[in-house]
Amino acid sequence: MKLIRSGNRGEEKPGILLHDERYDTSGLGEDYTHDFLASGGLQRLAFFVEKEKDRLPKVAPTERWGVPLANPGKIICVGLNYHDHISETGFIPEAEPILFLKAMSALNGPFDGITIPKGSLETDWETELGVVIGKTGTNIEKPEAMDFIAGYILVNDVSERAYMKKRGGTWDKGKGCNTFAPLGPYFVTKDEIPDPGNLRIWLTLNGELMQNGNTSGLITKIPDLVAYSSEFFGLFPGDIISTGSPAGSGVGRTPQRFLRPGDIIEYGIDGLGSGRQECREF
Amino acid sequence: MKLIRSGNRGEEKPGILLHDERYDTSGLGEDYTHDFLASGGLQRLAFFVEKEKDRLPKVAPTERWGVPLANPGKIICVGLNYHDHISETGFIPEAEPILFLKAMSALNGPFDGITIPKGSLETDWETELGVVIGKTGTNIEKPEAMDFIAGYILVNDVSERAYMKKRGGTWDKGKGCNTFAPLGPYFVTKDEIPDPGNLRIWLTLNGELMQNGNTSGLITKIPDLVAYSSEFFGLFPGDIISTGSPAGSGVGRTPQRFLRPGDIIEYGIDGLGSGRQECREF
Repeated sequence: MKLIRSGNRGEEKPGILLHDERYDTSGLGEDYTHDFLASGGLQRLAFFVEKEKDRLPKVAPTERWGVPLANPGKIICVGLNYHDHISETGFIPEAEPILFLKAMSALNGPFDGITIPKGSLETDWETELGVVIGKTGTNIEKPEAMDFIAGYILVNDVSERAYMKKRGGTWDKGKGCNTFAPLGPYFVTKDEIPDPGNLRIWLTLNGELMQNGNTSGLITKIPDLVAYSSEFFGLFPGDIISTGSPAGSGVGRTPQRFLRPGDIIEYGIDGLGSGRQECREF
Repeated sequence: MKLIRSGNRGEEKPGILLHDERYDTSGLGEDYTHDFLASGGLQRLAFFVEKEKDRLPKVAPTERWGVPLANPGKIICVGLNYHDHISETGFIPEAEPILFLKAMSALNGPFDGITIPKGSLETDWETELGVVIGKTGTNIEKPEAMDFIAGYILVNDVSERAYMKKRGGTWDKGKGCNTFAPLGPYFVTKDEIPDPGNLRIWLTLNGELMQNGNTSGLITKIPDLVAYSSEFFGLFPGDIISTGSPAGSGVGRTPQRFLRPGDIIEYGIDGLGSGRQECREF
């Protein structure tokens, strides 16, 4: 299934994408929250959709696409997880995966647009595969890690490079500005993505191809990331692990190219759909 | 006012502390959420308490003390914000304040106890003054910064030093383990703390005094931290800025002393109450 949420910010209704058409599933009486995922909501939704599929109301095409999860708990991001991206950023690889958190106030719909922070000169893009957690766990063992995954979601880990590297301290300053966490268009359940480790991942800037990778390039693979993250953080249904971005960010280009008001990025991953963000001034 | 929440995890009811006695305010029909703070809830609560004060039900003394805010959006922490703590950690001071995020899954009540992560050898304590945001803002100017504060809260920024420093990447790995963000006992409104920049801050380990500082030692002061944080993160009602810890952490002692199962820390700040955490094995 492809789960969506539609409507104005803060008023989104749950729905589902069927044959590229959005349908409202609020008749089920459940939004796509932690509790929904924790209590077998995906099965209830599948049953509801099967029963009601000829009667589900369509979502008007003009309706905003919201974040496909309601109040996800956290986004754990993985840094420098593709060799070609490590080279372009000039960072020294670490012995263990780099993890950091994105502020949840940065959540953004897949077509909402990105606000360049006041005075920012180095706002950059990073298309990433996000893993959606479906089950609570800590110290998860690798062989069981895939059981903790409910599905996948397209993430753009928008990043202000100067805030990350030149303003002191950790990367978090450059990762959590408002609008810096576009999620979606949809949250796709695990059964529809048989091999998340072999998906094309791409981004264009004003129509020009910038990122053109494949999730086969992930250094630390998906089950290992789930297990590793759970050593440090409790993982809960609705949490997202964003697995890192391949080469092609603005920081890695010669000359470097960062986002300016009016720029448009479009980006996607096979099977996870695509997003489009127009950049605007603060 | 001193706002509290009581009850089992996930079932907390809002309340208020009056003359050291807990009273249930759920008759108002509002929990202490983002929306409560954003919509003038503190005024409604004050009016309700004034009107109902002789009829409010007492909370049973055996009832658990919960986190005093319902679903706070984020905790922004400030690193190395007391000179004496910088010396003891051996870190090099940065030119700008260090900010990082605590995973919200680490939230913990003031008397719940701390779980030492599996295999952890360097779990440490940090008593901190937390600022509770009351109004939405980005790029807040320093002269207006105090207007964005709703009140204050006691924070223990529990930290795993090896995860922070020896496992690659940012500090977030050592800051967001389950139970690592005890908040409370209460959230005290701004009017009751006329000078947050001059409060005693202390911690004992098994009865022995370890931290004994004063918030007058803050390097970057409270209004500056609000303004500075809002350059990077949108601030929203219910967000917390935890302002850093004075000297006396286990990492700074000779020999170093980290938390072990059975250890008990008690800690507090003048006017913000005190917490007590018994440490347990994973």
